[in-house]
Amino acid sequence: MPSKHKIMALDPGPQDRLEPEITEYFAKCEEKLGFVPNVFRAYAFDNAKLKAFILMADDLMLGESGLSKAEREMIAVAVSAINHCHYCLTSHGAALRQRSKDPEHGELIAQNYRAADLDKRQKAMLDFAAKLTEAPDKIDEADRGALRRAGFSDRDIWDIAAVAGFFNMSNRMAAATDMKPNREYHYVSRERASDSALASSRGAVPAPAPTAAAASPRRRAERGE
Amino acid sequence: MPSKHKIMALDPGPQDRLEPEITEYFAKCEEKLGFVPNVFRAYAFDNAKLKAFILMADDLMLGESGLSKAEREMIAVAVSAINHCHYCLTSHGAALRQRSKDPEHGELIAQNYRAADLDKRQKAMLDFAAKLTEAPDKIDEADRGALRRAGFSDRDIWDIAAVAGFFNMSNRMAAATDMKPNREYHYVSRERASDSALASSRGAVPAPAPTAAAASPRRRAERGE
Amino acid sequence: MPSKHKIMALDPGPQDRLEPEITEYFAKCEEKLGFVPNVFRAYAFDNAKLKAFILMADDLMLGESGLSKAEREMIAVAVSAINHCHYCLTSHGAALRQRSKDPEHGELIAQNYRAADLDKRQKAMLDFAAKLTEAPDKIDEADRGALRRAGFSDRDIWDIAAVAGFFNMSNRMAAATDMKPNREYHYVSRERASDSALASSRGAVPAPAPTAAAASPRRRAERGE
Amino acid sequence: MPSKHKIMALDPGPQDRLEPEITEYFAKCEEKLGFVPNVFRAYAFDNAKLKAFILMADDLMLGESGLSKAEREMIAVAVSAINHCHYCLTSHGAALRQRSKDPEHGELIAQNYRAADLDKRQKAMLDFAAKLTEAPDKIDEADRGALRRAGFSDRDIWDIAAVAGFFNMSNRMAAATDMKPNREYHYVSRERASDSALASSRGAVPAPAPTAAAASPRRRAERGE
Amino acid sequence: MPSKHKIMALDPGPQDRLEPEITEYFAKCEEKLGFVPNVFRAYAFDNAKLKAFILMADDLMLGESGLSKAEREMIAVAVSAINHCHYCLTSHGAALRQRSKDPEHGELIAQNYRAADLDKRQKAMLDFAAKLTEAPDKIDEADRGALRRAGFSDRDIWDIAAVAGFFNMSNRMAAATDMKPNREYHYVSRERASDSALASSRGAVPAPAPTAAAASPRRRAERGE
Amino acid sequence: MPSKHKIMALDPGPQDRLEPEITEYFAKCEEKLGFVPNVFRAYAFDNAKLKAFILMADDLMLGESGLSKAEREMIAVAVSAINHCHYCLTSHGAALRQRSKDPEHGELIAQNYRAADLDKRQKAMLDFAAKLTEAPDKIDEADRGALRRAGFSDRDIWDIAAVAGFFNMSNRMAAATDMKPNREYHYVSRERASDSALASSRGAVPAPAPTAAAASPRRRAERGE
Repeated sequence: MPSKHKIMALDPGPQDRLEPEITEYFAKCEEKLGFVPNVFRAYAFDNAKLKAFILMADDLMLGESGLSKAEREMIAVAVSAINHCHYCLTSHGAALRQRSKDPEHGELIAQNYRAADLDKRQKAMLDFAAKLTEAPDKIDEADRGALRRAGFSDRDIWDIAAVAGFFNMSNRMAAATDMKPNREYHYVSRERASDSALASSRGAVPAPAPTAAAASPRRRAERGE
Repeated sequence: MPSKHKIMALDPGPQDRLEPEITEYFAKCEEKLGFVPNVFRAYAFDNAKLKAFILMADDLMLGESGLSKAEREMIAVAVSAINHCHYCLTSHGAALRQRSKDPEHGELIAQNYRAADLDKRQKAMLDFAAKLTEAPDKIDEADRGALRRAGFSDRDIWDIAAVAGFFNMSNRMAAATDMKPNREYHYVSRERASDSALASSRGAVPAPAPTAAAASPRRRAERGE
Repeated sequence: MPSKHKIMALDPGPQDRLEPEITEYFAKCEEKLGFVPNVFRAYAFDNAKLKAFILMADDLMLGESGLSKAEREMIAVAVSAINHCHYCLTSHGAALRQRSKDPEHGELIAQNYRAADLDKRQKAMLDFAAKLTEAPDKIDEADRGALRRAGFSDRDIWDIAAVAGFFNMSNRMAAATDMKPNREYHYVSRERASDSALASSRGAVPAPAPTAAAASPRRRAERGE
Repeated sequence: MPSKHKIMALDPGPQDRLEPEITEYFAKCEEKLGFVPNVFRAYAFDNAKLKAFILMADDLMLGESGLSKAEREMIAVAVSAINHCHYCLTSHGAALRQRSKDPEHGELIAQNYRAADLDKRQKAMLDFAAKLTEAPDKIDEADRGALRRAGFSDRDIWDIAAVAGFFNMSNRMAAATDMKPNREYHYVSRERASDSALASSRGAVPAPAPTAAAASPRRRAERGE
Repeated sequence: MPSKHKIMALDPGPQDRLEPEITEYFAKCEEKLGFVPNVFRAYAFDNAKLKAFILMADDLMLGESGLSKAEREMIAVAVSAINHCHYCLTSHGAALRQRSKDPEHGELIAQNYRAADLDKRQKAMLDFAAKLTEAPDKIDEADRGALRRAGFSDRDIWDIAAVAGFFNMSNRMAAATDMKPNREYHYVSRERASDSALASSRGAVPAPAPTAAAASPRRRAERGE
Repeated sequence: MPSKHKIMALDPGPQDRLEPEITEYFAKCEEKLGFVPNVFRAYAFDNAKLKAFILMADDLMLGESGLSKAEREMIAVAVSAINHCHYCLTSHGAALRQRSKDPEHGELIAQNYRAADLDKRQKAMLDFAAKLTEAPDKIDEADRGALRRAGFSDRDIWDIAAVAGFFNMSNRMAAATDMKPNREYHYVSRERASDSALASSRGAVPAPAPTAAAASPRRRAERGE
């Protein structure tokens, strides 16, 4: 596979002169993840586009929400599975394996969430995300009602929709550009859950999520780091 | 239709304390359009979400690009037609009627772009956007090749994908929340093309597009207004 | 759009020598609507085909039925939206804006009826028409049962099916021939509902529907006009 | 199968007082076919609906056309196969077995026309009918061009579209009403082609098609019968 | 149709030296059916492939099961109808006409099982087979629950799935190779049910099913024949 | 995930008294793989079903063929990705990572083969398998022609179809029964290609494929092991 190291099939131009905030953000990615996610390098030909993308991704995946970060990754991965998005299944598949502390579970959602042992809440959440992905024109009040009955607030429903919507955008950007994920993602959180669970019980801190968002200066500042 | 004045079917919370930049942006909308587009009011429960959304929409629809603003509205409307998105067909249908200075043409794209008299370039552009919407997993090099043969640069292809991707997100937000467009959109640019063309030939300045982006402080500053 | 004035992409031959009944019918169209709908001009190469088409369309859209004329236009438009039919969305969209005395409502059905504020009866009616359009082989007794529970008689169900079926035919004729609607339709009933409602309260008679059926000699005779 | 003798799942009312022309038509059906096709009995609750239906069906399947009657039945059956229409596959399947004088060929089209040994002309004809059935919104000039290259005139293309369109209507009427075909159709033209070919070579006249159209007073008059 | 006597569109090589068991099996087919089904001739280029295919088909369609042989043919035919498989609709359509002792019923399942008068058990069985065919990724516990409520055991559910799965394989082999059924199938069990029922009441033994499985040496031995 | 250790959602009965040949086969699996694949345990309630399944799987994936074993796994995985089959993506995903000696490549095919760097031969092979999976009724001579132009013989085309067909069956068995893969598969061949390539260059023998077929007594005997 000779072209594996390319970032994408388009060449929209050289890297823009990045704003200092972005440069710092990239440095944090390198420090935390060991690399800058290729999606950011792909957007880096234009500072304004990159910034808007990071702000939105960051807010959705790491901001305040009634959904846990692992649940948001579940939505990201379930949507990307429906759209067969190589980039997002690789990068967010890695994030989900890590966040859920169960690599088999992460893999399963990347294959077919219906085969996973989900509680009613998460089943309802992913059913909504799947329908919103496959048939957005058929969503109606009954679908929102099913989420409310599963315990979600209106704000939670917004967040489910926003994450599902965002990946319907990102999956298409990755498809249109044939975006290639960083190879490192393949090797994240592949050890057996029992082993990592053990490590966790010994006080090990879970590694930061392999998305740049985890390293966001703004979010980190908000968290007082 | 008793609920027509509601903005959406969710109540994610009261309006956030908006940043001054956003407050000014809303004032510009009122001034230019006569109203703040409901999509912004829908996002306004959270300043960070609203800001990221405006930055991205603004950049995509009004920023520098090899695609004209009317072409970007064509993509927005063609994608929204496939997804049967009431909100976006209404708001961007209005924008397209206005930008293209031909209300019949705008309506046609909102119905089925294949019935429109498009040149090869625009036909290729919308064919790509349609495939990216319907079958993102099947986009391959041949599809990018067709755009290049139609005269698009790699940067243009990025922009086509980015606009199509963005509306695949926005259509889903509107569907998930049953978002209602401002009624005013229905009545924008409904006069016959010949009449408006006449007005135009008399030196009338085209009215600003009925999207908030047109009133963006940042973009307006960039344009030196 | 240079070819806008063409009626269709096929040239099946010159206009047939029309029967007097048809000639009179066309005259009524001119008188009432200001034009002969292009679909009739398209069929006019053959008197027998045109006559059968008019008889059927006339009966379905204007004959006796438990469905109001506005409801029949709702079905026509909802089916045409699923099939993305430029001709029928334009011509029957105009008819629906007019019949429903609410241009926004008409537009909405042409975009996605699921976003409209429909009562249970009309929601059930359009759900049936949509399923009959998208998956006719999956209609079963439960679907008829849902219509009966919503208050429809068996005769009403026949009429819902017949109108939905008819537009599944007409949409395909328009698609196969790239039929172009008369430009006039675009400008029918575009004024705000409140204004026309006001006019109506002053005793104004609703204008005849912009379909030739309204001008049908036979129907008009039956109505004692 | 206890309900086999019912005509349909709806009871839209008792038989209308049929016009003499229709009564005569039914008598011809009895004489020629041995029965009145159930679709006519289904429509018979309303004289106007029945008449319009017969006029249209008659003209399409038996009128002048560049398509042979067997080819029109091929379209009818191929469309009905896509829509999985029990009524039309049974009744027009019988007609096609008879018209093509090859029961195996008729059966094959009712299963999947792509498995049949078709010449380029008929393959192009059915490909167009299939696309028009499955994705009418995607028909474009290239599709008409393929028919022209296969030797069809514009008038022929109209006829292909009209027959395909008509069965997209009829299939839906049959589905919506669960219409049951007359049992006799099952047993028409089931003998081996070689045998009937033999009979034919002995000067036997092909039996009239088992559709009421064959018995049409109008058409028969036109044929000088 | 000149190529009718060909077995398939591929030539994977000459017939393998068949094992004695297979040779005997073919002889039984000839004796019982009057021919060796073409699917076996197609596989006969490789003894191992043919043997595995026969063992599996034999076990599924004729082995012990809580499903009757006619029910298993119903699944075979309903699945093949969805996949529009010419070969299997012809061969198993014949088998179903014969097994169900009602040629009209067999034909109906080959057209659209939803139009048939099925009891709840068989309706549930075919609904499951249809969903498993069309959307295997969406099968979940509720689908198995529906079968259990209709009276099926877990072993029965396995068998429904196994037959449906098998024909999803066989339909694709037939499609990929353009496999042609033996012409004889067309003429099996075409007489009216009442006549054959009469014959049956006179002590006539139902003819063996027109699948090779019926003649399986192994199965016949198990049955003590 | 409490039910993870269950093999499937059905209980079709206790394990059958396995034939000695099967018992030996299971022992080989344990020896080679460290476990008996759950699909075999699922079928083990019936000796005849299990044997037919093993014979067919074995022949297809390990028998003589113009397709390499890695290519056959590519088909298995690409089909399973379209059908979103958790079991087969896990078990054959592992086999493909191992056979291709490139875990990233294996993962990629399990996500979307169109994103992989394939040569024309393998691209054509997977395009055929994908179409055969998604629209078997639309396969025609042009599809076989594309494979021949890519260098495949008729026998090769049979094998491509047979493997694709088999997984369209197996995917449905896994979906219908909610079959769970052995956990071990998740951890097979997860090390970086460079590392394993290194090991390979040191003379390490590739481990046997994690499918029972690899351990087949019959096949092993044929290979002279």
